Amino acid sequence: MKAEIIAVGTELLLGQVVNTNATFLSEELADLGIEVYYHTVVGDNPQRLESILEEAQERSDLIVLCGGLGPTDDDLTKDTVAAHIHHTLIQDEQALARLHEFFAFSKNKMTENNLRQTLMIEGGLAVQNPTGLAVGTLITEQGTTYLLLPGPPNELKPMFQQYARPLLEELFPQEEQLISRVLRFYGIGESQLVTELKELIDTQTNPTIAPYAKPNEVTLRLTAKSGDEKVGQQLLDSLEASVMALVGEYFYGYGDENSLAKVTVKELKKHKKTITAAESLTAGLFQSTLGDVPGVSDVFKGGFVTYSAETKAAFLGIDRSLLEKEGTVSEACAIAMAEQSRIAADADFGVSFTGVAGPDELENQPAGTVWIGLAEKGKPTIAFLQHFNRDRRSIRQSAVMKGLSLILQAVNKKK
Amino acid sequence: MKAEIIAVGTELLLGQVVNTNATFLSEELADLGIEVYYHTVVGDNPQRLESILEEAQERSDLIVLCGGLGPTDDDLTKDTVAAHIHHTLIQDEQALARLHEFFAFSKNKMTENNLRQTLMIEGGLAVQNPTGLAVGTLITEQGTTYLLLPGPPNELKPMFQQYARPLLEELFPQEEQLISRVLRFYGIGESQLVTELKELIDTQTNPTIAPYAKPNEVTLRLTAKSGDEKVGQQLLDSLEASVMALVGEYFYGYGDENSLAKVTVKELKKHKKTITAAESLTAGLFQSTLGDVPGVSDVFKGGFVTYSAETKAAFLGIDRSLLEKEGTVSEACAIAMAEQSRIAADADFGVSFTGVAGPDELENQPAGTVWIGLAEKGKPTIAFLQHFNRDRRSIRQSAVMKGLSLILQAVNKKK
Repeated sequence: MKAEIIAVGTELLLGQVVNTNATFLSEELADLGIEVYYHTVVGDNPQRLESILEEAQERSDLIVLCGGLGPTDDDLTKDTVAAHIHHTLIQDEQALARLHEFFAFSKNKMTENNLRQTLMIEGGLAVQNPTGLAVGTLITEQGTTYLLLPGPPNELKPMFQQYARPLLEELFPQEEQLISRVLRFYGIGESQLVTELKELIDTQTNPTIAPYAKPNEVTLRLTAKSGDEKVGQQLLDSLEASVMALVGEYFYGYGDENSLAKVTVKELKKHKKTITAAESLTAGLFQSTLGDVPGVSDVFKGGFVTYSAETKAAFLGIDRSLLEKEGTVSEACAIAMAEQSRIAADADFGVSFTGVAGPDELENQPAGTVWIGLAEKGKPTIAFLQHFNRDRRSIRQSAVMKGLSLILQAVNKKK
Repeated sequence: MKAEIIAVGTELLLGQVVNTNATFLSEELADLGIEVYYHTVVGDNPQRLESILEEAQERSDLIVLCGGLGPTDDDLTKDTVAAHIHHTLIQDEQALARLHEFFAFSKNKMTENNLRQTLMIEGGLAVQNPTGLAVGTLITEQGTTYLLLPGPPNELKPMFQQYARPLLEELFPQEEQLISRVLRFYGIGESQLVTELKELIDTQTNPTIAPYAKPNEVTLRLTAKSGDEKVGQQLLDSLEASVMALVGEYFYGYGDENSLAKVTVKELKKHKKTITAAESLTAGLFQSTLGDVPGVSDVFKGGFVTYSAETKAAFLGIDRSLLEKEGTVSEACAIAMAEQSRIAADADFGVSFTGVAGPDELENQPAGTVWIGLAEKGKPTIAFLQHFNRDRRSIRQSAVMKGLSLILQAVNKKK
């Protein structure tokens, strides 16, 4: 079972866009037990795409194409693949209905070229697009299967996971199943995690261990191969226990779609606790990150962005003399922000962020210096000094992740 | 002058690593006037790499290979390319000297396999590695030039910029330069933009026009080819004028690294106006987006996240009877939030967001229904009803972008 991925788009060849689709699809296909032998990128040029298709057809059982399903004249993937296998394009009624709904709801004008997005290759299966308008196709011709997906990652990913993946699982059933489990860690870097787990990693055969570094966290994917789901799960249980014995203190949750914010919201809900925040350098990023979690309204009612000394005083009632004496990037300020916001919002927890996002210094403190305050009803308020590296955006994100981890720790201590 | 990029590494095909090298090299080569026609990724397998080299040699003048120059047994790029062009590998003395220095300095033990990294292809030019140990090669054989670079981006980038790029400039002198300009548009979809510009796009030769859709905005890259920078700029000026005549009302700024938030902050600064916000469904995302812009503290002092009816009343003093009678997803609520936040923060502008982020309905209104309020000192407050599509995250981001555009419009009206 050999597969390859062809990404179509001149923007990739000009270096304007990174080919993250190939990475995502490779990971998904590996998970389905389908081996990927090549990635190719070709521009919006039907002749060159056709020549790539000719080679690909010779060497691969499955060809996944991404990009070139859009409304414009340079979106030629569907036409080129259809011509390659001597099929025509037809309208997909479900995609057409969605297109009309989309424009009716947003009240934007629908231009004629949008109809191109609802075309699929005749004789194939339509692959619906839950977050966009371009429909895909899955079609097998002369022993080669072609899967056409759109280019924007925010369309390709949900489309693959919801619709294309189940179709591939049916088409290419695995004798041995790959069963995987993702463990998520916060507070430990990839190189340290890998060092701690060196012996486990060096001796891995079944299950395998794949570490992956993301901003501010590391995930481990444990994958077992087995003809029996139950045996596979037992293999994973046993490996997970060995991993946890070494680095369990950094573990916070399971799953690809999980996040520290989701786990924090879930634990707050479980303990029936509410949270608020007063944010200076993060300017709303902590609250916005909570706001990404559906159902957060049970535990989060609102909070404050106090970017200047004036708003720290005006919104939270912090003593101006404290701000002048201690400075805004200080333990005292972080404590006052956390406490006063908790009281103002009548919440169980109040978290505060004050520091230097950069690029310039502030109050003679370098970019990356951050105080995080944590107020909890009925307990003394504390603040933590952090030093984060890199650019403005990373510093703010690192601060938010640290804030989430502090809340998670505090709420779990209450058990 | 046709080029292609071949990345070698099984980790790329497993989806463990993103092929950012191809993106970087594509951008650099475009800048040198060298057109990239293909990217390929192949695993650490000499037979498959050889078959890719055979094709590449037929269709390209320059083949850039990255990856597989390291010390381990699966690093086979040098051996495979050398065999392909019937050359041998020889030791590069400069790389060997650096290797010995490196291990002497770090006092680590040098294992034998490190010597592999100092080999280059006989008859070529050594390309030194300023941040690593693996030496590269530039060699031309039968009209095709091969450039071998290492895989780690932190080695590949400095090596290309310091050593490989000057060699390529000498080998392939540019007669004509590529000069490009990026125009950014908000409030028009890609399909409509392309429809409006259809005639310009259909007749493009020099300069060319490349549209690109990003979340909530569209960019146009205009690229002129000319032997004379000034002539190139004039070509771009003239095309830009034609574009602006058709879709100028949606244009908001220039450049790859620009954003609606940056332009909005810049204009607020220019007009010496300050801004605040009261956010419900966006939960701090608007303020956090402003906070991403360095120097925003001149125009933004702070604001409110009022996620519940209680905090709308408590933080902003909104009449509880208004909230009960009109609901929180209402024009009246958006207006009150914008006005009260503007007064509380003593700002020139107050913007508010209240609506349904989803996935569930709220107050019998579907996900995507959003009211955005705009209060301006000395003017009547107004609110705008929007209907955004897609998922929770997209709805919140779309609302933020619309809020920025409303502020931008309002501040520019004051001229």
